[in-house]
Amino acid sequence: MHSMTAMDTAARPGDTEFDRGTAVTEHPAEPGVYRTELDGGWRIGGGINGGLLLATAARALSRELRSGSGHPDPYSISAYYLSASTPGPATLHTEVVRRGRSVSTGQVSLIQQRPDGTRAERLRALATYGDLDALPEDVRTSATPPELPPPDQCIGADQAPPDFLAQADLLHRLDLRLDPACVGWALGVPSGSGTIRGWLRLADGRDPDPLMLLLAADSLPPVTFDLGLFGWTPTLELTVHVRAKPAPGWLLVSHTTRNLAGGYLEEDAEVWDSTGRLVAQSRQLAAAPRP
Amino acid sequence: MHSMTAMDTAARPGDTEFDRGTAVTEHPAEPGVYRTELDGGWRIGGGINGGLLLATAARALSRELRSGSGHPDPYSISAYYLSASTPGPATLHTEVVRRGRSVSTGQVSLIQQRPDGTRAERLRALATYGDLDALPEDVRTSATPPELPPPDQCIGADQAPPDFLAQADLLHRLDLRLDPACVGWALGVPSGSGTIRGWLRLADGRDPDPLMLLLAADSLPPVTFDLGLFGWTPTLELTVHVRAKPAPGWLLVSHTTRNLAGGYLEEDAEVWDSTGRLVAQSRQLAAAPRP
Repeated sequence: MHSMTAMDTAARPGDTEFDRGTAVTEHPAEPGVYRTELDGGWRIGGGINGGLLLATAARALSRELRSGSGHPDPYSISAYYLSASTPGPATLHTEVVRRGRSVSTGQVSLIQQRPDGTRAERLRALATYGDLDALPEDVRTSATPPELPPPDQCIGADQAPPDFLAQADLLHRLDLRLDPACVGWALGVPSGSGTIRGWLRLADGRDPDPLMLLLAADSLPPVTFDLGLFGWTPTLELTVHVRAKPAPGWLLVSHTTRNLAGGYLEEDAEVWDSTGRLVAQSRQLAAAPRP
Repeated sequence: MHSMTAMDTAARPGDTEFDRGTAVTEHPAEPGVYRTELDGGWRIGGGINGGLLLATAARALSRELRSGSGHPDPYSISAYYLSASTPGPATLHTEVVRRGRSVSTGQVSLIQQRPDGTRAERLRALATYGDLDALPEDVRTSATPPELPPPDQCIGADQAPPDFLAQADLLHRLDLRLDPACVGWALGVPSGSGTIRGWLRLADGRDPDPLMLLLAADSLPPVTFDLGLFGWTPTLELTVHVRAKPAPGWLLVSHTTRNLAGGYLEEDAEVWDSTGRLVAQSRQLAAAPRP
């Protein structure tokens, strides 16, 4: 029911904030190397959003694994975050690890230069790609999407704490509607259950695709808000499984944590498309906010 | 209550099947390169068990990140499986990606030679290591361990289908006691819920440690047995978070899947120690058995 709304206003692929933000161009002289420009509009906290970086890295790898192997789509991608990215130019260094018949595996590093000219690796990722359109149609998923009110009865992300919003440029690029049951933290009464969920689409109406799901998996406020912890949760590692191409329209994203201990937490995300299909699952290990 | 039993018979570290199976020695001439001997006793299906391979790779990386950085323990490790390993010699090529104050990140490839002399990369992993002993004591975990009967009232893995046992040498190295509620498949009546859980320890009594948890996360029968699918489920990607050093004694391991679709499934594992602490969480993307 939501897909019509989104399609009515959909920005054209290639001419959207997300496509510009994750655009890569081949280096003229170095095979397998791509250039990108990290846009400060995707900033959150001390750096560029980890999901946007992952989508950019994944786009470079998609170019490499599509040509020759016919494997344009990430099935699984695991990123290890090494240092905070800054707005400005970056290069993506890809390596094809293995080309196979049904899947291929590659590696990609996102690298920037520090002001002093030294090389700073921001993230490194391994990934296995395939062709989502070539997969069989069978769906025996036992998971069911969480139930929440429709987007127009949910809470805009502008209700987040002002300290958070001040460092979350990213939120202007997203249309994020949070389940009222999960935003007690905005009123000073976090539920304590460790859940945040809501509807998500890109603010300019650009419909989701496999690369956009990588952003979706890391774009809700930290699940620790629901535990009453409002600091930042820097990601050490983020793995996303993309299981199907999403239908047009709203995504339903649910974040949970079950294991906050020893200064770290895991954060699981499930991303459902407008037909109710579970199209992506992710887990990250993040540093917990200091109490 | 189980820890005493295990400690009574505990094999000495270094002189156990697991320590021998995952032993690595520095290459005399090439810094960062280690040698190992893959033992057919850890075979399952068409290759060496993925968890054992991961523990071996992690041991090499632990050597590199302990010296210099003081980071001996994997916090998160993500392995991409490239081809089936065979019993015999292998080399581990490590790279230190980043040395940090609280954590360091590395990469490792496990490589064998094919009979024709060509190089075959079996797996490549990225990982972030730290020092589990240095973490704060806070535990706010909301997850609770599953309830199941004590080990002596559970079902030995020798009840698995004969076709499975014939290719599962690994099971002789493990003392695996499955929850009777999850072994309907052994009697031809799988529950269909997508869950397998049980008690696990090493058959020779060797107590668990962080590297052994990497094996534990991938050593139960495939969760697809509980869905009535008895073929193999080759792992594309396996990420394990090690969250604490396990106490001596039995581990409780729970495997679940929520999303079997398009020829693939995710398999989540939780590993609890004998004190009831959630010490490891893992997720893998695996190819579903062909119907």
